[in-house]
Amino acid sequence: MSYDRLTIDNAAVLLVDHQTGLSNGVQDQSVPEYLTAVTGLVKLAKAFKLPTVITTSAADGPNWPILPIIRQTLPDAPLVHRPGEINAWDNAEFVASVEKTGRKKLIVAGVSTEVCVAFVALSAIKAGYDVYAVIDASGTWNKLVQEVAVARMAQAGVKPITWAAVGAELQADWRNPSGQDLGHIMGEHLPFYGNLFASFQAVKS
Amino acid sequence: MSYDRLTIDNAAVLLVDHQTGLSNGVQDQSVPEYLTAVTGLVKLAKAFKLPTVITTSAADGPNWPILPIIRQTLPDAPLVHRPGEINAWDNAEFVASVEKTGRKKLIVAGVSTEVCVAFVALSAIKAGYDVYAVIDASGTWNKLVQEVAVARMAQAGVKPITWAAVGAELQADWRNPSGQDLGHIMGEHLPFYGNLFASFQAVKS
Amino acid sequence: MSYDRLTIDNAAVLLVDHQTGLSNGVQDQSVPEYLTAVTGLVKLAKAFKLPTVITTSAADGPNWPILPIIRQTLPDAPLVHRPGEINAWDNAEFVASVEKTGRKKLIVAGVSTEVCVAFVALSAIKAGYDVYAVIDASGTWNKLVQEVAVARMAQAGVKPITWAAVGAELQADWRNPSGQDLGHIMGEHLPFYGNLFASFQAVKS
Amino acid sequence: MSYDRLTIDNAAVLLVDHQTGLSNGVQDQSVPEYLTAVTGLVKLAKAFKLPTVITTSAADGPNWPILPIIRQTLPDAPLVHRPGEINAWDNAEFVASVEKTGRKKLIVAGVSTEVCVAFVALSAIKAGYDVYAVIDASGTWNKLVQEVAVARMAQAGVKPITWAAVGAELQADWRNPSGQDLGHIMGEHLPFYGNLFASFQAVKS
Amino acid sequence: MSYDRLTIDNAAVLLVDHQTGLSNGVQDQSVPEYLTAVTGLVKLAKAFKLPTVITTSAADGPNWPILPIIRQTLPDAPLVHRPGEINAWDNAEFVASVEKTGRKKLIVAGVSTEVCVAFVALSAIKAGYDVYAVIDASGTWNKLVQEVAVARMAQAGVKPITWAAVGAELQADWRNPSGQDLGHIMGEHLPFYGNLFASFQAVKS
Amino acid sequence: MSYDRLTIDNAAVLLVDHQTGLSNGVQDQSVPEYLTAVTGLVKLAKAFKLPTVITTSAADGPNWPILPIIRQTLPDAPLVHRPGEINAWDNAEFVASVEKTGRKKLIVAGVSTEVCVAFVALSAIKAGYDVYAVIDASGTWNKLVQEVAVARMAQAGVKPITWAAVGAELQADWRNPSGQDLGHIMGEHLPFYGNLFASFQAVKS
Amino acid sequence: MSYDRLTIDNAAVLLVDHQTGLSNGVQDQSVPEYLTAVTGLVKLAKAFKLPTVITTSAADGPNWPILPIIRQTLPDAPLVHRPGEINAWDNAEFVASVEKTGRKKLIVAGVSTEVCVAFVALSAIKAGYDVYAVIDASGTWNKLVQEVAVARMAQAGVKPITWAAVGAELQADWRNPSGQDLGHIMGEHLPFYGNLFASFQAVKS
Amino acid sequence: MSYDRLTIDNAAVLLVDHQTGLSNGVQDQSVPEYLTAVTGLVKLAKAFKLPTVITTSAADGPNWPILPIIRQTLPDAPLVHRPGEINAWDNAEFVASVEKTGRKKLIVAGVSTEVCVAFVALSAIKAGYDVYAVIDASGTWNKLVQEVAVARMAQAGVKPITWAAVGAELQADWRNPSGQDLGHIMGEHLPFYGNLFASFQAVKS
Repeated sequence: MSYDRLTIDNAAVLLVDHQTGLSNGVQDQSVPEYLTAVTGLVKLAKAFKLPTVITTSAADGPNWPILPIIRQTLPDAPLVHRPGEINAWDNAEFVASVEKTGRKKLIVAGVSTEVCVAFVALSAIKAGYDVYAVIDASGTWNKLVQEVAVARMAQAGVKPITWAAVGAELQADWRNPSGQDLGHIMGEHLPFYGNLFASFQAVKS
Repeated sequence: MSYDRLTIDNAAVLLVDHQTGLSNGVQDQSVPEYLTAVTGLVKLAKAFKLPTVITTSAADGPNWPILPIIRQTLPDAPLVHRPGEINAWDNAEFVASVEKTGRKKLIVAGVSTEVCVAFVALSAIKAGYDVYAVIDASGTWNKLVQEVAVARMAQAGVKPITWAAVGAELQADWRNPSGQDLGHIMGEHLPFYGNLFASFQAVKS
Repeated sequence: MSYDRLTIDNAAVLLVDHQTGLSNGVQDQSVPEYLTAVTGLVKLAKAFKLPTVITTSAADGPNWPILPIIRQTLPDAPLVHRPGEINAWDNAEFVASVEKTGRKKLIVAGVSTEVCVAFVALSAIKAGYDVYAVIDASGTWNKLVQEVAVARMAQAGVKPITWAAVGAELQADWRNPSGQDLGHIMGEHLPFYGNLFASFQAVKS
Repeated sequence: MSYDRLTIDNAAVLLVDHQTGLSNGVQDQSVPEYLTAVTGLVKLAKAFKLPTVITTSAADGPNWPILPIIRQTLPDAPLVHRPGEINAWDNAEFVASVEKTGRKKLIVAGVSTEVCVAFVALSAIKAGYDVYAVIDASGTWNKLVQEVAVARMAQAGVKPITWAAVGAELQADWRNPSGQDLGHIMGEHLPFYGNLFASFQAVKS
Repeated sequence: MSYDRLTIDNAAVLLVDHQTGLSNGVQDQSVPEYLTAVTGLVKLAKAFKLPTVITTSAADGPNWPILPIIRQTLPDAPLVHRPGEINAWDNAEFVASVEKTGRKKLIVAGVSTEVCVAFVALSAIKAGYDVYAVIDASGTWNKLVQEVAVARMAQAGVKPITWAAVGAELQADWRNPSGQDLGHIMGEHLPFYGNLFASFQAVKS
Repeated sequence: MSYDRLTIDNAAVLLVDHQTGLSNGVQDQSVPEYLTAVTGLVKLAKAFKLPTVITTSAADGPNWPILPIIRQTLPDAPLVHRPGEINAWDNAEFVASVEKTGRKKLIVAGVSTEVCVAFVALSAIKAGYDVYAVIDASGTWNKLVQEVAVARMAQAGVKPITWAAVGAELQADWRNPSGQDLGHIMGEHLPFYGNLFASFQAVKS
Repeated sequence: MSYDRLTIDNAAVLLVDHQTGLSNGVQDQSVPEYLTAVTGLVKLAKAFKLPTVITTSAADGPNWPILPIIRQTLPDAPLVHRPGEINAWDNAEFVASVEKTGRKKLIVAGVSTEVCVAFVALSAIKAGYDVYAVIDASGTWNKLVQEVAVARMAQAGVKPITWAAVGAELQADWRNPSGQDLGHIMGEHLPFYGNLFASFQAVKS
Repeated sequence: MSYDRLTIDNAAVLLVDHQTGLSNGVQDQSVPEYLTAVTGLVKLAKAFKLPTVITTSAADGPNWPILPIIRQTLPDAPLVHRPGEINAWDNAEFVASVEKTGRKKLIVAGVSTEVCVAFVALSAIKAGYDVYAVIDASGTWNKLVQEVAVARMAQAGVKPITWAAVGAELQADWRNPSGQDLGHIMGEHLPFYGNLFASFQAVKS
């Protein structure tokens, strides 16, 4: 597996079923940790202007609507409401949206990790994409399910990653234009980092 | 490893030594978590009409009988009492029962994960099957043993999975006929999901 | 603190805000462990014919309705929908229902432990009741909150307890009439115990 | 210990050494959990217009400045920079500020729990106050230190509590004027609750 | 609470329901840790010639017989099979056996901690005894139940202790006659200590 | 329990059986955490010139010698080798050494927490001293034993504390003469604090 | 990786540096869990008459002698004291002893997992052997080191396994001659299994 | 993957962003465990005279300076301050420094594991180096991020390792000249080992 990097020109983001009902089932991390990671990833998508496809399942039913923070941050991203397909890759509109991004590297996150993320990731690998599963911006019912999902995806060639690593790989150099934006995002969603910034600010002023 | 999916036409379920005595040794999960996962898997087998083979070891001895929920849910599945073979694959009747299913994808669960599940899984891989080990519907003596068993099986090409992912992959689309059944099973055995259903029900009524 | 026991003649049960929405925020135990304990307690209330008062908060709002298992098991228990009071003890109808039970020992459970349970428990202590807080049939947002809630209640004289201990103290002797009922409840909701029963059944038959 | 409740008329908040440097030493909770609890508590102080006293230690030195969220939310609260006293109660200006609030119930949080919180709490108990230590809006170096600090304070009559319980006890009834504010605070800082709100919002609209 | 020590002349041991079936439900410790602690305590009882009373519940039923190591180590201790009383203190033969020891300090262990141990401990406190609950030589279904049981007993004045502390308090001085016996017991059941002994032995020889 | 503070004039330190063999049995914390806490406490004793009494048990036997860091830091402290007494308070020379300090507040640490620390602490309470048990500068075989030991001591009026809280309470004000020493000790043994210092140093230079 | 099984004719056991000093540094499992697994493996080696090679490092120095249980159980196994080689495979006598067994499958355990076990395992793989690393009958300083060691070995083709899986794979069929021996070993070192046996024994008698 | 060992002639060390600010964000281990591992690795680099390259990011900004222990121990190692590149491999001076070592095996550690370590490691693999990632001498924000980072690197062929295994593999034989140095380093930074040494010393003297 050669190290062919994520860049702002080769990557797209897929957000699968981050819905308010499903999110309350997440127990492989604490809810604050899960939500801060999801929000961090969504803000990265905006800051780096990455093409993003959002999809939901049963959003009018018990899974409830997409997390408000996602829709507010990315109001123009295509949002595909799937009428029944569990694997979003089985939905033609979703796949067309992905293809339309023109990107061959897919950054996937969602709820739950072992179903909504893993199925899309495995299908995308089969379709020839290079796939990154963002484990902390995804969630599932307990730690064991997370571990098994990561093992299954890694075995199939999906690359496990976390949201801050996605941001750092895309930024590449702090001097690139998005540097300040990324600083703010990390300062807010890696809170220890926000503390470092605030400390430093105090020194300079 | 290409992503060739589990379907209701290509998969069979093997339940290995889920006996009442052995089940009381399970400590890699809490007992309620283990039992709810086993029950979920067994109900999936019934809902999807998957051919299922059950086997026990020393069921008249200290391992005690099969969990009642298994026999009650799947009264017609072949039940092979092994006279001594630890690896069920060494028992001709068991292998014949598996072959008779005509399926090439085997969903294996049991107690203990590192013996009863791993041995069958490794033997089935060798015999040319595509094998899925359902880690949460299996159990063993402590977390370390579970981790080592998953690592050994993954290294050999067995796919680690969890019961709800099996259900979702088989269902494929919520509009398929088994959708309502699956909803009930998930509502009962992923209890946060049952809460979502009940909340939604309240809105609609 | 003298050991004055819970009996079927001196105890009542208070179930506070076990609603489907709130229950999905419970993370101090796994959801299966929480739900099996709540169900166990509710069945005890029925088996021992303990007067029981149920109350909800914002049941038409985001907290959602009472857990179905509670209403199904105890269809005739008074159910007080509080219009706004967070501490159920501030609701006159609730207190009247409690007084009407005529019991001086109150077994309290609910969601969340540090608010809905603790406030009622502390108020009841102040009103002269002997109060038991059933920690495993209650739930809250994380383990730290649970620990702090138990410490606060214990400091004030509330007795921390768990659902199976409630059952055992009420039963007192397995030969009392409710013995078989309790056996079934424990067999189902302390699942290792169900396994022991099933093993024993196999021997006898 | 009688249950004499926290009200918006009898309580004041003391925030002790929540500084950006010290906050990066907090490891008894994850940093996101700690920060969301601190922010929740500070917003409660504002919403309920509780008199609040803030203090820092070595804020021009390695402990760094107060968390920005605190100063931004409560710009008018007295802020006492202690020149050297470790126990804020040894600083006359701090004690005067506390006395000036006219409140006899003190809600204390800070970093670290076993020093900055415990020393103030124990001194305030000695001075005749009723003291609540908010454990999740405080932080320290590891779980063991937290446990020992809670044990020491509880033994001396300090009441351990968490930020959401403070909010609920002050609110008392959701129909009181601050109800909507509290709803927003809880929705944002108990994120599972925010998900419930957003789900409910979707139903109503 | 004055520190009035356990001695070989003032203490008796009560072993409540350490049965092979119930022991397989123990999950607040690992099974090897639980069993090594029980065995250590039983050997202490023998080494210090402490009067010991053993009792079982439903030993002919699903709880199964007393742990073999207990009967083998203490073959002459009175063994009271209770016909139905859950709290052993309700059984006249048991109480008579305790009274016959003539001791006023009772060292209690058993399964489960919150029922079999706590009920006896609370009853014995009420009857005027000084009671020690040996938490590691007892066991229950999960860590939460253990924590709640310890909190309830401590609140009522029962002293929580562990088996090795019992041994050390009884021994008092390594030069007392039982010193060598205790050394062997600790070497075997606190295994790190056995390693120290073996290391030292190697130096001396 | 009134808050009567530890000062450099009213406190003495007792170090009980911190021997190299026994220290390798400590598993309630990681070994680096245990050792850094012990070293921190010993350096505090030196920095604050607190009278200190050291004692060992079987130091020529399998418990091995006192930790070198203790002897090197406090070469002149009386060191009482007990010939057999498990509770150091049973050794006349030890008690005489304690009395000779003329202090009525005793800061006790050692291995193991539930024996060597608890027995001395309980005896000292009985003898009229005010006793602080430093839990992180003590160690024992597993977390459960630690929890039980803290519960037993707290119940008897021993104050649980941690080494850094001891240092902070003795220092009282950073401007007192020992301030710089304490800064160095905390910088080295609360390593996150050392990082803050080094960061600050970088700014100033 | 084909599943070519361990048998009593193709396997040898290598025990590397299970010394009394080193064993007291084991913290990736509790000491009772580690010791019961080591003892189980050693008894398997005896019961199945597997050729076994034992080796030590600095046995006359601070690592101390081999665990007594190993020497007592396998008094005739070659014991190679290495004068300095850390990787036992660098010692000609050790390699010669391994070759002399004539076996091509090596079951390796020792302390520490990431050094003594991993180095031998990686060297043996390079030398053409099929290697199994018994993770629970090995030990190291903390869980992180264990995880990293397993990952490194698995990556290189070493098969991770646990002691009971080794026993089950070698036994193959409970009716083989060693069946009763294995039953006793498992009954003693998987204690929940011993409880099952004892329960069953009670039924039959 | 053949086992081609690390030697003092084929390996270099890369230390990436072990800065005082970033280090305070480390929470996948306790801070004392992290710091003792970093220090151990740095001392190994000195003892084995391994060519070492140090690099920092934003060292004049919020990440703060390199840990003092690193600079003090390796004052002559090249230190590359990167002006903005997140992946040190993107900095020509850094790569030139690595190439100048002439070594083909790179031992990489840093903060954070999933960014600073993983990016360098993956780039170095691509550039044809054999790469070892020292997980305990690296650190990141929580355990989940560590697990994902190890999985990603292992998948790409980076070898996960820990600092003590690096030391042992380089030393190869305790009789090699660096033996005594290594003994001291291990004695100080694997503290249980220091206890063994001190115990042994006591015997010999």
